[in-house]
Amino acid sequence: MARVEERLRELGIEINTPPKPQGYYQHAVISGNLIFISGQLPLKGEQLLYKGKVGREVTLEEGVMAARLTAINSLSVMKSELSDLDRIGRIVKLTGYVASAQGFNLQAKVINGASQFFYDIFGDMGKHARAAVGVYELPLDSPVELEVIAEISS
Amino acid sequence: MARVEERLRELGIEINTPPKPQGYYQHAVISGNLIFISGQLPLKGEQLLYKGKVGREVTLEEGVMAARLTAINSLSVMKSELSDLDRIGRIVKLTGYVASAQGFNLQAKVINGASQFFYDIFGDMGKHARAAVGVYELPLDSPVELEVIAEISS
Amino acid sequence: MARVEERLRELGIEINTPPKPQGYYQHAVISGNLIFISGQLPLKGEQLLYKGKVGREVTLEEGVMAARLTAINSLSVMKSELSDLDRIGRIVKLTGYVASAQGFNLQAKVINGASQFFYDIFGDMGKHARAAVGVYELPLDSPVELEVIAEISS
Repeated sequence: MARVEERLRELGIEINTPPKPQGYYQHAVISGNLIFISGQLPLKGEQLLYKGKVGREVTLEEGVMAARLTAINSLSVMKSELSDLDRIGRIVKLTGYVASAQGFNLQAKVINGASQFFYDIFGDMGKHARAAVGVYELPLDSPVELEVIAEISS
Repeated sequence: MARVEERLRELGIEINTPPKPQGYYQHAVISGNLIFISGQLPLKGEQLLYKGKVGREVTLEEGVMAARLTAINSLSVMKSELSDLDRIGRIVKLTGYVASAQGFNLQAKVINGASQFFYDIFGDMGKHARAAVGVYELPLDSPVELEVIAEISS
Repeated sequence: MARVEERLRELGIEINTPPKPQGYYQHAVISGNLIFISGQLPLKGEQLLYKGKVGREVTLEEGVMAARLTAINSLSVMKSELSDLDRIGRIVKLTGYVASAQGFNLQAKVINGASQFFYDIFGDMGKHARAAVGVYELPLDSPVELEVIAEISS
């Protein structure tokens, strides 16, 4: 059936094999029926599409799009690990790190870009627990980094 | 028996149904015998009781109280998800994010406000692994955000 | 056989019983076949070996060494909890918090110090999912804090 792939096509979203991690870690680890996805940045291929702090170089709207892209990249990792995305039972937990300008406190709105993406793809099974926090700096001067834990149906 | 509710009464602590999440996420997700609680702020109803950075607008003592309130709110979420708080087997993990003034390094003391609360309620089963970190900004300019993972007895 | 202890000896790494947590928490909690390790700092005994922000008081190279030391300390906690380090099935997840100078974006390189350590000790089973983020302040003005989730073979 490939329901998730079908849904991605409907939404016009393309997912690509993620670039190899640079270092002694992996994009994802499966333990029991949980898959832990490494922190994802708003990369398209190897290019960072958004750069800087949200509330300064990056607008709220761009931050939301950046968060959405980190969610898409997390899904790409799941695809490359599981082959069949319909094996994802539910999205369990997001941690959204937003590189924030001083006085910027709309981290929840930024991470809604990721939350809504998972809802769009998985419906109620895409609804998750989450935390959104404002950090000082992120790798490559990215405005957003997203961690995902998902449940795999066995 | 309702041991936990009894303990809350003894300590004069009232827990309330948490306000609905604003976005496509949930207050909590249960996966296997773990419950993942979304990041909680020091809200009373819909009002943020503490605001600003610990070490600047918010004193250490207020930060400790704010952390305690985030723990109380996490317990409110557990109550609304599980109905019976005695189903909580143990508190597994806290991540405490402290919005910190420059040069403020007492994040561990702040998060003790949450750690001690769980010990007061659950005794040894309330003792958890934890991390306390100092972030730059938090949603609503909150001084503390707390994430909890707990184990449910089946 | 004590393969892990043997490997530590080969690499000339000594692990010590960690100092008691100051507060109502624990160094680690086991839930199911996961062990959650509390955030570790680059302490040797009770002394913090590195202090300040990476990219300012602490160089990249020192940051890498600090991250490696937090990984060694996480292993010490596993040892004190499990007695037999060969019970560690795999390293599942790292979250590396790097106290960062403004404009410092090499958090991934810093946390490689921890990632490589686990690979050196556990080989492929040491490869993990991870996130590396740049925070504003850490307890004791530490440059690095590391959280680890590992899987225990039953």
